[in-house]
Amino acid sequence: MDSTAMFNLTSGLYIIGAKDGSKNAGCVVNTVVQATANPITLSVWINKNNHTNACIKAGKAFSVSILSEKARETLFGTFGFNSSRDMDKFAQCEHGFTPTGLPYVREGATGWLQCDVIDSVDNFTHTVFIAKVTEAENLAKETPMSYAYYHSVVKGKTPKSASSYAAERPEAEAEKGYVCSVCGYVFPGGKAEFDALPASYTCPICAVPKSKFVIK
Amino acid sequence: MDSTAMFNLTSGLYIIGAKDGSKNAGCVVNTVVQATANPITLSVWINKNNHTNACIKAGKAFSVSILSEKARETLFGTFGFNSSRDMDKFAQCEHGFTPTGLPYVREGATGWLQCDVIDSVDNFTHTVFIAKVTEAENLAKETPMSYAYYHSVVKGKTPKSASSYAAERPEAEAEKGYVCSVCGYVFPGGKAEFDALPASYTCPICAVPKSKFVIK
Repeated sequence: MDSTAMFNLTSGLYIIGAKDGSKNAGCVVNTVVQATANPITLSVWINKNNHTNACIKAGKAFSVSILSEKARETLFGTFGFNSSRDMDKFAQCEHGFTPTGLPYVREGATGWLQCDVIDSVDNFTHTVFIAKVTEAENLAKETPMSYAYYHSVVKGKTPKSASSYAAERPEAEAEKGYVCSVCGYVFPGGKAEFDALPASYTCPICAVPKSKFVIK
Repeated sequence: MDSTAMFNLTSGLYIIGAKDGSKNAGCVVNTVVQATANPITLSVWINKNNHTNACIKAGKAFSVSILSEKARETLFGTFGFNSSRDMDKFAQCEHGFTPTGLPYVREGATGWLQCDVIDSVDNFTHTVFIAKVTEAENLAKETPMSYAYYHSVVKGKTPKSASSYAAERPEAEAEKGYVCSVCGYVFPGGKAEFDALPASYTCPICAVPKSKFVIK
């Protein structure tokens, strides 16, 4: 079986927002799809180990921020390579709250959706949440960011918890140099440039210190 | 609620193939998403009224043909605006069969996936099928067709049975002229050109006769 055929499935990129009591939780996914038009419902797959998954199971509600091609790459680091158990990811970026109090991302997003969970099904590592869209707003008239654009233009990485994680994705294999051991970010320079970075340098994607970079 | 925010969800376009006894069944969808990476599973939403839905519920298996930007627009007419109850849609195009005998489209496709249903959930008008990918092959190194490309470049229409059908989609509203009353195809010409068409003219998308065109 040539599983690289799966690389041609097309998807967008989204920040899922949820509440953990009074705290915010969220993660990045590429698995949102419209399920029905009347009423408007959608589904999203979220890793069972993600804190956001537990928050949605408890709160029965989540938001979707639809990312545009203008989204800063640090958004993906913040939401894709950290846990909401340890930090308020939304505090790291311009954000707002839906009428029912769910956090959403205001920067680099075409709009947001507020969703009430109707049903959920566990399937191996992930859960699919089926939800009714109860509120929605457009924020910016920008091109939505596709997963293909994220890989080919942003040179973005995929967290191991993602539905579409593939260690052998060719873009990941081709890159060499000083690589962040946490998120896979490749420093755009050679040894001289890397050595010249101050000790206070942190990964622009996931914010870990310079010492976490390895040569690959 | 501004439901046009949903228009920014990104998706691809796919032909779903199934067996109805010895006959072929299939339809076009934009709702395939990878669910998990290990094992490789995916989900797809299909309208409950589609014959293909009943065939998958009975046979517990389906194929996915991943359409590329090279897909002929007639493919969308054949698979989107006809029923497999009335015609063998696969007989209208270059096709093949997976090892277990499921039909797939060979032309205008980047590849195909063979899927065994694990679970399914009905939700209003549609069913989500969760399935394990058991075989896969790449066919052509082309850019996958996104739903946005289909609307903006192919000027494609959305069947009313689709998850993302929206009567008010702006692309559909803006177009005027001689319009196919079945699939919404807009004839690219004025009255003189339309009148000059032979009586044997049929819609290039869904193949209904000239008499089914209306002025909009």
